[in-house]
Amino acid sequence: MRPITSDRLRQKFHQVIYEADTPAGKLFDLVLLLLIVVSIVAVMLESVVEIQQKYGAELAVIEWVITGFFTLEYIGRILSVRQPLKYALSFYGIIDLLATLPSYIDLLFPGFHFLLALRAVRLLRIFRILKLMHFVGAGNNLLEALKKSRNKIAVFLFTVIVICIILGTIMYMVEGASSGFTSIPVSVYWTIVTLTTVGFGDITPQTPLGQFISVIIMILGYGIIAVPTGLVTAQFMSQNREDSNTQSCPNCSVYGHRDDADFCYHCGSKLNF
Amino acid sequence: MRPITSDRLRQKFHQVIYEADTPAGKLFDLVLLLLIVVSIVAVMLESVVEIQQKYGAELAVIEWVITGFFTLEYIGRILSVRQPLKYALSFYGIIDLLATLPSYIDLLFPGFHFLLALRAVRLLRIFRILKLMHFVGAGNNLLEALKKSRNKIAVFLFTVIVICIILGTIMYMVEGASSGFTSIPVSVYWTIVTLTTVGFGDITPQTPLGQFISVIIMILGYGIIAVPTGLVTAQFMSQNREDSNTQSCPNCSVYGHRDDADFCYHCGSKLNF
Amino acid sequence: MRPITSDRLRQKFHQVIYEADTPAGKLFDLVLLLLIVVSIVAVMLESVVEIQQKYGAELAVIEWVITGFFTLEYIGRILSVRQPLKYALSFYGIIDLLATLPSYIDLLFPGFHFLLALRAVRLLRIFRILKLMHFVGAGNNLLEALKKSRNKIAVFLFTVIVICIILGTIMYMVEGASSGFTSIPVSVYWTIVTLTTVGFGDITPQTPLGQFISVIIMILGYGIIAVPTGLVTAQFMSQNREDSNTQSCPNCSVYGHRDDADFCYHCGSKLNF
Amino acid sequence: MRPITSDRLRQKFHQVIYEADTPAGKLFDLVLLLLIVVSIVAVMLESVVEIQQKYGAELAVIEWVITGFFTLEYIGRILSVRQPLKYALSFYGIIDLLATLPSYIDLLFPGFHFLLALRAVRLLRIFRILKLMHFVGAGNNLLEALKKSRNKIAVFLFTVIVICIILGTIMYMVEGASSGFTSIPVSVYWTIVTLTTVGFGDITPQTPLGQFISVIIMILGYGIIAVPTGLVTAQFMSQNREDSNTQSCPNCSVYGHRDDADFCYHCGSKLNF
Repeated sequence: MRPITSDRLRQKFHQVIYEADTPAGKLFDLVLLLLIVVSIVAVMLESVVEIQQKYGAELAVIEWVITGFFTLEYIGRILSVRQPLKYALSFYGIIDLLATLPSYIDLLFPGFHFLLALRAVRLLRIFRILKLMHFVGAGNNLLEALKKSRNKIAVFLFTVIVICIILGTIMYMVEGASSGFTSIPVSVYWTIVTLTTVGFGDITPQTPLGQFISVIIMILGYGIIAVPTGLVTAQFMSQNREDSNTQSCPNCSVYGHRDDADFCYHCGSKLNF
Repeated sequence: MRPITSDRLRQKFHQVIYEADTPAGKLFDLVLLLLIVVSIVAVMLESVVEIQQKYGAELAVIEWVITGFFTLEYIGRILSVRQPLKYALSFYGIIDLLATLPSYIDLLFPGFHFLLALRAVRLLRIFRILKLMHFVGAGNNLLEALKKSRNKIAVFLFTVIVICIILGTIMYMVEGASSGFTSIPVSVYWTIVTLTTVGFGDITPQTPLGQFISVIIMILGYGIIAVPTGLVTAQFMSQNREDSNTQSCPNCSVYGHRDDADFCYHCGSKLNF
Repeated sequence: MRPITSDRLRQKFHQVIYEADTPAGKLFDLVLLLLIVVSIVAVMLESVVEIQQKYGAELAVIEWVITGFFTLEYIGRILSVRQPLKYALSFYGIIDLLATLPSYIDLLFPGFHFLLALRAVRLLRIFRILKLMHFVGAGNNLLEALKKSRNKIAVFLFTVIVICIILGTIMYMVEGASSGFTSIPVSVYWTIVTLTTVGFGDITPQTPLGQFISVIIMILGYGIIAVPTGLVTAQFMSQNREDSNTQSCPNCSVYGHRDDADFCYHCGSKLNF
Repeated sequence: MRPITSDRLRQKFHQVIYEADTPAGKLFDLVLLLLIVVSIVAVMLESVVEIQQKYGAELAVIEWVITGFFTLEYIGRILSVRQPLKYALSFYGIIDLLATLPSYIDLLFPGFHFLLALRAVRLLRIFRILKLMHFVGAGNNLLEALKKSRNKIAVFLFTVIVICIILGTIMYMVEGASSGFTSIPVSVYWTIVTLTTVGFGDITPQTPLGQFISVIIMILGYGIIAVPTGLVTAQFMSQNREDSNTQSCPNCSVYGHRDDADFCYHCGSKLNF
């Protein structure tokens, strides 16, 4: 039997930790997924005062077990890649570090207790696991559509923000501090709340003129939601079309055959795909 | 005249209760529809304190008449199918049972009075009747479109929930209990209220930073509503396209030809439309 | 000169009042349009207590001048059609009557003062004028698209209402009167407020379970708005396609030419349209 | 060396101020962009009482430096165009003037202090710079789509407003002043707040009938948002289709062929793609 060299060991580790094609790799990912979900639930419950008072000790134990596992995993990841620094500075490398650090910081500097909530970033680690497990084909499709209409959406959002700043300033001039429009930033905040049709109602216009301008803002917001929707829909549609069927007839070269076509719809010759 | 055997009786019952092609079957369905609507209105009115005090007796009578009918109907359904157990455990079988049980439970255990509201599930029985009456062709179309984009919508919803948990945790750290963000679950609840543009306004951010993050959440929510809309629209569109050409091949009778097709995509024979 | 017979007079009147092709008819419509707008503004201002106290007399004069004109116009319409009864019972006939009646009722029975607000139906008369003026070609297009997806929208709305009744009942059981969910009808009202993403915030869930169900309602509402949008969009799209170009090539009969095409894109032969 | 004539100087100035093709022109635009953003931030911060009290002097200095630059720039623009009056009366000419005037007015007439907020219009100047920098190709695309569906959107908005006035009047009659529906204009305002799904919640219906009508308004608003969305989406789609095939005819160079075109639609010559 060949001695297990350091290099082979690293490769083995890499397979388990970074890949999901072997049974051990799959098991590792499932355990990790479970621990992330348990950890997030624990972080959320910890923040509820009554639960923290009753089950604080149990939650602390769960937290340290998970932090321990995540620490070992982080070390394992560092050791099993060829370029540890590159991993450590990558997006997931930083997320992995942020998943363990807050607990240690809280131990050393009890004053930074509020940093504990940062552990919620652990949730982002789920996306890596899902990626390994090939769950996110549909997601890539969505992302691609959003990316392709990125420019137009950016121009749209920029215009919306400019409109909100100008209309917010006008609302500040019209309504004034007595109705809750205490400053331009607050008025702009209110305008965005209204334009996006969220409408908290903590600040509302009181003067007839202010209500009239609000109506314009609301109808504007109600109408221009059509723009991002239209952009993304048009993008999805052209994706659908591209996916449909890209084969051409060997005889007459026309496109646009059904996926289950046996004969060319145009010349009637046999299709061999 | 042939004596009506038990089997023929069951068949007769089955026809009336489960089908809607005979006049008796149609009448039965109409009566059932009426009783369901009356029953739901009664359940709703009963919950209004003033009406309950004034017309409580009348409502109780209506309730028991309907419960009686539903009980008889349930027994009839059990008796007239060949596999009573299979019916009893089916979706509609359970709904039918839940439609009668609460009234009896209330009679036996007055403490479980609040269970009476469960009678609202009777409303679900309407869908069976509508199905029988062939009202829901359009509904199937909708369902199919939703089903086909199910995966993408699931990925979208999962991402939205992860975003809401992370942004909700950040809002909890930024705003704190003084503004109503008393715990992470409450903050996540607030984030979903804001992202979906519902905006109750019972909890609102008070700090400038909190309002800034809110603005990001709102604009995100305003923008990404485009995703489910785009998915479903693209789905409807491709349904429309498939439905558009209703001609069938004169040779092999398949449907779904392109509008400009000259030859059948399935058998290659000439199309003469 | 021929004496103007009663019949010719009626025809003349008809032309002025019912048509908009002659200068007199156009002028009549413009005056009517102006009076309707003035009248609506007056009705709205009258309802504002401060304005009513200050300018009540002036508003009353305006009101009576307009009521007088509308009365004369109504009589004119009755006299100038061949079938006065048919007109009187038509949609616009009833609207025209309702436009004048409230003022007289208020004069005779001062107790029914609140009926004055009914004069707002005068606004509906605008649509007849716009119709005459051929302003609403685009509107017909919209209406047609809505009509064609009417069935699907009806099934969708019915399903939404059933969902709202069931979820509203569950919210009533979960939250109870202490959070403002005082009865099932109120809970159903709240559920619709939440599902449609309006979110007044006058009633809000207080229990964790109630908030969890609210989250489901909100995400549902945020997601299924895709359905009516998708239906109407798909309808508009197929309208666009139908409008595009319905000519076929005289040589090879293919469809789908550009509006400005001179040659067939498929066989290259000259198009003669 | 040729003496720099007044005309050449003007041309030079014009190049720097109005164009962005030379390094000097680009630098000028970047400085202007920076100053506009700084100025807007300063205007917003100035309106926050605490910041104004602490950093009022610093903000005033920043303001006057920027106003000085904008004044010089305005004079430069006037001097370097051939038709100064035409520029002064153009859209951007007026914006440029409004960007400097408020500061001077505040100096001369301290009573008009609130006019300072007008400086927010400076933000509109950003669009000119972006235009020069060719950032807004995507924006033109959006604008064109909105313009093409302008008529339909106008008819839609007009109908929505008429519906809101009539439903608002009904709500005023049903609810009355005790629920906050103090006048018809306020009721119409509330109806628009509800129909656009903003839902502030400052005014809410209290009577069962009022809540029932609200439900109709909400479902209407939830449903008809499909109309503008559908219109704009259909517009984007047909834009996409026109843009899709970028091949030009080898003979006459026209664009816009179908993907499956064999012959040029314009000159009928064979296409070899």
